[in-house]
Amino acid sequence: MRVFIVHAHHEPKSFNASLTAQAKAALGAARHEVVVSDLYSMGFNPVSDRRNFTTTKDPGYLHQQTEEIHALENGGFAAEIKVEMDKLSWCDVLVLQFPLWWFGLPAILKGWVDRVFAMRWAYGGGKYYDLGPFRGKRAMCSVTVGNIASAYSESGMNGPISSILFPINHGILYFTGFAVIEPFVVFAPRRISQSERENHLRRYRERILNLASAPLLEYKSIDDYDENWVLKAEARDSRKKGSKSPAEGMI
Amino acid sequence: MRVFIVHAHHEPKSFNASLTAQAKAALGAARHEVVVSDLYSMGFNPVSDRRNFTTTKDPGYLHQQTEEIHALENGGFAAEIKVEMDKLSWCDVLVLQFPLWWFGLPAILKGWVDRVFAMRWAYGGGKYYDLGPFRGKRAMCSVTVGNIASAYSESGMNGPISSILFPINHGILYFTGFAVIEPFVVFAPRRISQSERENHLRRYRERILNLASAPLLEYKSIDDYDENWVLKAEARDSRKKGSKSPAEGMI
Repeated sequence: MRVFIVHAHHEPKSFNASLTAQAKAALGAARHEVVVSDLYSMGFNPVSDRRNFTTTKDPGYLHQQTEEIHALENGGFAAEIKVEMDKLSWCDVLVLQFPLWWFGLPAILKGWVDRVFAMRWAYGGGKYYDLGPFRGKRAMCSVTVGNIASAYSESGMNGPISSILFPINHGILYFTGFAVIEPFVVFAPRRISQSERENHLRRYRERILNLASAPLLEYKSIDDYDENWVLKAEARDSRKKGSKSPAEGMI
Repeated sequence: MRVFIVHAHHEPKSFNASLTAQAKAALGAARHEVVVSDLYSMGFNPVSDRRNFTTTKDPGYLHQQTEEIHALENGGFAAEIKVEMDKLSWCDVLVLQFPLWWFGLPAILKGWVDRVFAMRWAYGGGKYYDLGPFRGKRAMCSVTVGNIASAYSESGMNGPISSILFPINHGILYFTGFAVIEPFVVFAPRRISQSERENHLRRYRERILNLASAPLLEYKSIDDYDENWVLKAEARDSRKKGSKSPAEGMI
């Protein structure tokens, strides 16, 4: 198994760092291959602009997707983008390791997606969701959250964690074709004891060693949708029988 | 009315730029005050780390919130952060102007939030949601979306736009105390005619001139939640009578 971990935390002694170290050790001991992009230590620049490219299609107007298609056809991605694309092509499983900042990805990781997931390479030309270019691969969010789990429950003030992660799990990972593994979430790691944190690390080790079989989030197929991206009538009927809308089909 | 627009698009001739120009012109003509942070033209760095601060609480371990509280007590925010805080303090209404990238904020804008919305200043110490430090102010997302509206409907493949914007509207804006105005959304601006785009600009002008009275998203009060951030039984009963869960109370 080839695992690509994208790690986004600014403190090398953080619990996020312990989780990534645990994953590397466990995968190495089990003779899996692992590559880590530690975005802070790499000094990754998350601002998407013309620096994504060495080529230029239209010098007078920056339309990102037009430049992405042009770069794809002409080998025009900047070296720092190309190397991340190569890791994505290489891997069987992608793991995003991050603290939930403002109910989303830290900017350094959001910008890694903004810059690297180029049109026609990661999506587009009819290739979306279960037809996406990354089909056959798996992906998982491994997330630490500041507040306690009850705040992110169905009746929690912050809203269900599944709703908060929906734009990432469905909108980034599933959109590009990954089969999306149930997220690994640690709530309030600073408020729990050292032994509880160690329990989470052991739990993470199990999850990491079982990435190939870990349960997936259930999403509908793009075949269930019509040319306006609206659920077809027959798929709507099956939905009444118990399957889930995209915003619901999560942990 | 004092309006603060945070603008996040890398192309000065984009439709996003037209929307912000329209807002500035309309507000100026009506003798309102307006300030724009054009993040790309400012070269804003969205990577949150020790550069947020001129002070240091713990040189051996970077815990962001600890450093934020220390900086607040010691005037220790970097100049580029402090100036954005001052604009937030000054304004009556905050407008986030952005293209929806990967179902979220472009990294340059996500990082503006990550860095500027400091603990104890923008939230914390019991001040969350309708008790948040920005209570009394209003905020609105003005968003362009690549795909057509039906893809973001209740039965749309991408999920409802309200679900996609939930982490921003509820998790960033309402979390810090803003009354959250219904988002202004333009779907697929590149696929529509020039006259349709001009209609949207006129529609935006009306919205901008009516920010003080524009309809708000309905969210529950933090008083409805218990010490574990879980909805109290009596508030749960009222919910059965028709009020909405946090993940539902949107456009």
